[in-house]
Amino acid sequence: MTEKDNRYLIVGLGLMGGGYAQGLSSLGMHVAAIDRDPDSIAFGIENGYIEKGSTDADPTLIASSDRIIFALYPEIFIKWMEENAHLIRPGTLLTDVTGVKSPVVSRIQELLPEGAEFIASHPMAGREVYGVRNSSSVIFKNANFIITPTEKNTEEGIEWCRSLAVSLGFRKISVISPAEHDYMIAFVSQLTHCIAVTLMTCNNNTHLADYTADSFRDLTRIANINDEMWSSLFIMNKEFLLDQMDSFIREFGELRDLVENEDYEGLKKKMRLSSKRRKAFDLKEKQ
Amino acid sequence: MTEKDNRYLIVGLGLMGGGYAQGLSSLGMHVAAIDRDPDSIAFGIENGYIEKGSTDADPTLIASSDRIIFALYPEIFIKWMEENAHLIRPGTLLTDVTGVKSPVVSRIQELLPEGAEFIASHPMAGREVYGVRNSSSVIFKNANFIITPTEKNTEEGIEWCRSLAVSLGFRKISVISPAEHDYMIAFVSQLTHCIAVTLMTCNNNTHLADYTADSFRDLTRIANINDEMWSSLFIMNKEFLLDQMDSFIREFGELRDLVENEDYEGLKKKMRLSSKRRKAFDLKEKQ
Repeated sequence: MTEKDNRYLIVGLGLMGGGYAQGLSSLGMHVAAIDRDPDSIAFGIENGYIEKGSTDADPTLIASSDRIIFALYPEIFIKWMEENAHLIRPGTLLTDVTGVKSPVVSRIQELLPEGAEFIASHPMAGREVYGVRNSSSVIFKNANFIITPTEKNTEEGIEWCRSLAVSLGFRKISVISPAEHDYMIAFVSQLTHCIAVTLMTCNNNTHLADYTADSFRDLTRIANINDEMWSSLFIMNKEFLLDQMDSFIREFGELRDLVENEDYEGLKKKMRLSSKRRKAFDLKEKQ
Repeated sequence: MTEKDNRYLIVGLGLMGGGYAQGLSSLGMHVAAIDRDPDSIAFGIENGYIEKGSTDADPTLIASSDRIIFALYPEIFIKWMEENAHLIRPGTLLTDVTGVKSPVVSRIQELLPEGAEFIASHPMAGREVYGVRNSSSVIFKNANFIITPTEKNTEEGIEWCRSLAVSLGFRKISVISPAEHDYMIAFVSQLTHCIAVTLMTCNNNTHLADYTADSFRDLTRIANINDEMWSSLFIMNKEFLLDQMDSFIREFGELRDLVENEDYEGLKKKMRLSSKRRKAFDLKEKQ
């Protein structure tokens, strides 16, 4: 039996699940999906993303799957597993796309039946739109992919997850702990979304944007945000996120005081540090 | 005498001045420049941006210019005018590129000799690099341009400034007061630069950016910043900027408290407002 004989199941056929389904199908895999929305299942079948699907947690479909990918919001993922994990066959390999790891991974691994393995991962890709109709595996091309194993994972399981990412077109694949992931994501992704949202909500004079240069556009691109998903992610990663928000507030307050005190040298010093780090970041990106 | 017979003088042949010089020369205008750096003048002549130039405030060059464009940092602009405004001939039309208006415009208009007219303007274009060697009039294509006249300006003067912007390729030309400009710029440009700098300086763990998705890259693009120019601009626009920074801090603090209190509904409400405004902004941009 080769990898192509494995039957894939996508649970949650939305923007991310649809991208996985499309990518795997185009590689010649057998892909099925579960989604509560019959339109999403119908769209997936019509467009060749999946061979078949169900709007329920169909026991036969679940038990006949060798590989399962969960593309659900974190609470819904946990709830789904609480209700249906017993249907998963031993030997099944599972992964997910969830944007927080520590609170999810341990709970999911507890719920899994003996012999099945959940290797948590986070594809660092997305769009400001929703649903399978907007999905495309193109968003994975050259994106980053993070695998967050625990002591319950095997080398084989991690290797399967890595090869899945490679086959879907991800460029840089990192392996870190769930806690390292959550600390990192609080800074590079959640804090930036908090800032973008605040920029849009702190000032009602959005007509000012009539005059905008590129900076306002860039900083608010992600301000068009999936409110259900991100509210969940923020709350589930609360401790790390609050640390990052507080450190941002402290530092922003320092900059504010430099402006108030007309501290020209102090301002220049902050800006030179900022420029230096941003240039280093650009250099790394080009590597 | 047609507009093409007018002799243009660019004072400050850097990134912006170089862009104006290149654009005007390519339209067949006679362009000269003053810049304290002999290399910039030499580069301008060699590359056909200017016909001639000087590293000093050459009285003959100034007196023989019909149109003068100042592309200097704000304090240097004021100082230059204090020393040299008496050399400017009556009938000369002048404009600038300065990023703050209220503190600059009134002072410059005071310093001007009778019969010369300064029409302040702000081309909303730029790059994260410096100097004439990086300059190109390409950055003006489809960018916004703001004219900030006072009661001392004439319709003819404003019309000249507008036609200058059109000829250089700017798309949307707005006419607002210096104070409206400074209030607007504090929000859409200065606040966003403060945020980008803070994101780079608040956390030394820039290796975290190894894992970044697009959001961190977008929000920090402008964090590579011209420290001399922006420190000046921040301090000169201190009152409006502090208002915007304080309102950002208040709103960011509210979001922080919603996360701490796990206020799912409150978070979703903020995000929906943010999404609604960002979508409206996108629609406007497309018009």
